[in-house]
Amino acid sequence: MSAPANANDLLAEIERIGADAERGGYTRPVFSSAELELRSWFESHASARGLDVETDGNGIIWAWWDVSDADRRGAEAPGADRPDRRGAIVTGSHLDSVPGGGNFDGPLGVASALAAIDLLREKGVVLRHPLALAVFPEEEGSRFGVACLGSRLIAGIVAPETVRALTDEGGRTFADVATGAGFDPSAIGPDTERLAGIAAFVELHVEQGRGLADLDQPVALAGAIIAHGRWHVRIEGRGDHAGATRMADRHDPVVVAAETVRSLRAHTLVVDDARGTVGRIKVTPGGTNVIASAVDLWIDVRHRDEDAVRRIVSEVTAATERAADAEGCTVVVTEQSFSPTVSFDPALRSRMQAVLPDAPVLDTGAGHDAGVLADVIPTGMLFVRNPTGSSHTPAETAGPEDVTAGVHALAAVLENLLT
Amino acid sequence: MSAPANANDLLAEIERIGADAERGGYTRPVFSSAELELRSWFESHASARGLDVETDGNGIIWAWWDVSDADRRGAEAPGADRPDRRGAIVTGSHLDSVPGGGNFDGPLGVASALAAIDLLREKGVVLRHPLALAVFPEEEGSRFGVACLGSRLIAGIVAPETVRALTDEGGRTFADVATGAGFDPSAIGPDTERLAGIAAFVELHVEQGRGLADLDQPVALAGAIIAHGRWHVRIEGRGDHAGATRMADRHDPVVVAAETVRSLRAHTLVVDDARGTVGRIKVTPGGTNVIASAVDLWIDVRHRDEDAVRRIVSEVTAATERAADAEGCTVVVTEQSFSPTVSFDPALRSRMQAVLPDAPVLDTGAGHDAGVLADVIPTGMLFVRNPTGSSHTPAETAGPEDVTAGVHALAAVLENLLT
Repeated sequence: MSAPANANDLLAEIERIGADAERGGYTRPVFSSAELELRSWFESHASARGLDVETDGNGIIWAWWDVSDADRRGAEAPGADRPDRRGAIVTGSHLDSVPGGGNFDGPLGVASALAAIDLLREKGVVLRHPLALAVFPEEEGSRFGVACLGSRLIAGIVAPETVRALTDEGGRTFADVATGAGFDPSAIGPDTERLAGIAAFVELHVEQGRGLADLDQPVALAGAIIAHGRWHVRIEGRGDHAGATRMADRHDPVVVAAETVRSLRAHTLVVDDARGTVGRIKVTPGGTNVIASAVDLWIDVRHRDEDAVRRIVSEVTAATERAADAEGCTVVVTEQSFSPTVSFDPALRSRMQAVLPDAPVLDTGAGHDAGVLADVIPTGMLFVRNPTGSSHTPAETAGPEDVTAGVHALAAVLENLLT
Repeated sequence: MSAPANANDLLAEIERIGADAERGGYTRPVFSSAELELRSWFESHASARGLDVETDGNGIIWAWWDVSDADRRGAEAPGADRPDRRGAIVTGSHLDSVPGGGNFDGPLGVASALAAIDLLREKGVVLRHPLALAVFPEEEGSRFGVACLGSRLIAGIVAPETVRALTDEGGRTFADVATGAGFDPSAIGPDTERLAGIAAFVELHVEQGRGLADLDQPVALAGAIIAHGRWHVRIEGRGDHAGATRMADRHDPVVVAAETVRSLRAHTLVVDDARGTVGRIKVTPGGTNVIASAVDLWIDVRHRDEDAVRRIVSEVTAATERAADAEGCTVVVTEQSFSPTVSFDPALRSRMQAVLPDAPVLDTGAGHDAGVLADVIPTGMLFVRNPTGSSHTPAETAGPEDVTAGVHALAAVLENLLT
């Protein structure tokens, strides 16, 4: 047996895939050539470890380390052609990124899962449950607008027909893009049988704030994911010439969009520890000497209390509508996703705390597939220190020793769950 | 001799080139495949008329109808290999468009020039001056940010090294893009000899306001182009995670950009008949769940009094800087172009008025190559009625009878100048 892989080395293998020369960092949207290359990279590592790799109808990759018949105790014998995968322990994360993101958000959890398997094998751990490594598509929602799309699909939280009709910035539907990438969009949808076979899902992720840096600790357990959602704001006005059109004759959606941004900031600031962001704006047609005909922008709001989130969005919507009325524009606000506050499974967390007694418990403002799946199966998360506290930017990082500490923590948790 | 071309038919020939399915209308940036196809279309029409077609170092196409030796009187004999092109009369316009623009802004002047030549020939007009049809590149400035780039280059108003380094939205330099399209970027720059040979330039253009519609007239003469300029505003903050970053820790350039938009509107409204527009915004990296690291936006300001333009820009700059200070962001405002109020050549206009006694004289808020060239050679303009008054949008239009009236007006003016 070869030496266990170092997760830092695994991450170094992919550090050129999807590099974004313009924005810096990485742009790896789901089903792009970069994301497909990362999938292949993962699959070849999984195959090299003798894992049985499959991609399900939702585009989620599952790489199975099955329980050998010799090690199986107390369960009925599997069929000759198919291993028994009930009671599975699953770990993993995602490989897609936001535009100009870092190399850790997602890939750290995947690389750590591969490295943790190597540690378990080096130690000669005998499985009592099957272990799967999972890779989820479109966790960021940066292509089709719905975060954690793969986990939402498998859990039945979003309707397949809705997903097939989602469009990316180039106007291409999910169905078209998936087909072009070799996936079958008619196969997406809930998979309760697969979920029923999972006893626990543990996701390791780089921390996206300064909690561990402030506490001087390498690894934390997740307490809760605060409620969060994203809303699409479409403002329509009338395109016209920037020089020839009098101010009184204008219906300029950019002026309305500015009020959306201003009011989101104002209404977020008055709620303690709320977060409100506009990070994406599309002006149509987008010429310097052209009054815009339409603006699309997206607002992202988060707070531990989900009512506070909804209150902020409703105040911003009202402010935008008032501004649109004054400008002679129209506005439509559409909820694209909403995730209530997620508390991870308390029994699983207790077990993880027993394995990692020094690890603090941290809430997070970031969404994760583990948060979506927490509704339907027991889930837990591990966070690895990020000294900059920044994420979704090239400044996101994790020190080599902390990455290794994360792998050891994950291996220890998995060993506890598997044996 | 075949029948004179109808300018409406000529425009119909190009109505699919560069059509923009997403925005509507046409997107024909300079050196794009659409703009190159339009150049070929023009060149084949010019060649079919026996015109001598050349493209100069600035990418301006010139199609010459030379004076035959038999018709030349009082000028020295030309060399055997080269016609004498001094004292030329020039007409023409541009073929590039803003993103999602109409089919008339630019092409109407080019198609009308071709049709006007046919009318002059049908009438048997004998030239005493050479006539050139000119097509200028990047009039809109929608690719490299500087409007009337071709005329600014030939007139020496912008430095060639500055232009070569201009970048488009994909980060490609003018030099790279021009080379890729088959042009030699080392050849751009002032051409005083060519300009010295031009006695007058007359540009026909679709009107970009409601002046002619209000006066119930098909064709107008240009009085003045009001002062206008465009400024690039670059705001830099710090990219971060939209969920994990507390509001107090943010340096969000989108919030600052919203204040730029608000203050531009406010400062423009208090100056009678000023125009101020933000029509183009680029958020980097542009993810819904990502606090932006930078925003680029462009402001377009116009007024008959150029001091008023500069005052508005300086007030908006100050307001943006205050907002940037409060947010912990930096801001740099760069002038990309500025055109003082242009009054067209009074002697040329008098001559045009004598030919077209019913045509009203209208000022315009839109910039044109004729406005840039007015600094160095006698120029005049004709406007054709646009019933919607809208321009830089697919709603821009001109009725078939007005298009024909424009061709006849242009032919009459050219006949007067050429004979």
